[in-house]
Amino acid sequence: MEYTREEKEEFMLEALKEAEIALANDEIPIGCVIVKDGEIIGRGHNAREELQRAVMHAEVMAIEKANQYEHSWRLLDTTLFVTIEPCVMCSGAIGLARIPQVIYGAKNPKFGAAGSLYDILTDERLNHRVELETGILEVECAQMMQDFFRKRRQR
Amino acid sequence: MEYTREEKEEFMLEALKEAEIALANDEIPIGCVIVKDGEIIGRGHNAREELQRAVMHAEVMAIEKANQYEHSWRLLDTTLFVTIEPCVMCSGAIGLARIPQVIYGAKNPKFGAAGSLYDILTDERLNHRVELETGILEVECAQMMQDFFRKRRQR
Repeated sequence: MEYTREEKEEFMLEALKEAEIALANDEIPIGCVIVKDGEIIGRGHNAREELQRAVMHAEVMAIEKANQYEHSWRLLDTTLFVTIEPCVMCSGAIGLARIPQVIYGAKNPKFGAAGSLYDILTDERLNHRVELETGILEVECAQMMQDFFRKRRQR
Repeated sequence: MEYTREEKEEFMLEALKEAEIALANDEIPIGCVIVKDGEIIGRGHNAREELQRAVMHAEVMAIEKANQYEHSWRLLDTTLFVTIEPCVMCSGAIGLARIPQVIYGAKNPKFGAAGSLYDILTDERLNHRVELETGILEVECAQMMQDFFRKRRQR
């Protein structure tokens, strides 16, 4: 489904709300929502420390919820909104869930695998390719990360 | 911890037992065990269809179990045995869990990310690098995959 710029910003604001949950738990503040036909079918935030589960990144949590909602591992006709560029694991998971469209806020130059270190989502050798858009609420998404790491360094 | 060739084959046989569980469920037959100090602390098999969860590959299931067992997302001093070369998602998950050693049976030329399509586990740009060994019970691990896909094509 195609969304307007305004709709995309609304969904990214929902992803930012998820990031705020992570922030309140003193986790790296990244949030994600998965949308189908204009409705959020999965939400997630980074919960690695809270749950002590290595794979519990925002995107994986949202994919797990959306799989449950759909009773299917295939998330066809969905759009995944995430505040920060997905890492290697999450980019792989997005492909495995067959998510056709990904929109992220800000780049992650150190760990990003959707344009920074790798181009996993658009690699023609893999059997699933994703339509990728970046820069929606980029400043807000990046700012939340910068504030978190600045505070952490000050401690 | 260093294991002898015989010990490695014993652990790979345990991973193959997990692959057989997947096979019995008509899933792509891949199995995994995570070992610490000579003891298996997490087992997993591909359960994507059974559980309808896109991320439920053998390695992720084993990492989740080991995280639970250790009450920690960090799987320090562990060795992960998996029958087939990990995909992009699982290679990323192995790094995120800080698993220091990975041993796999057979290559996966189409989807492998630990030597075939990518070298995620040994990429010096990432903040965790893995000691990688391949070829333990390679024939047995590859055979199980070949049998599965041959039967699937015949249907």
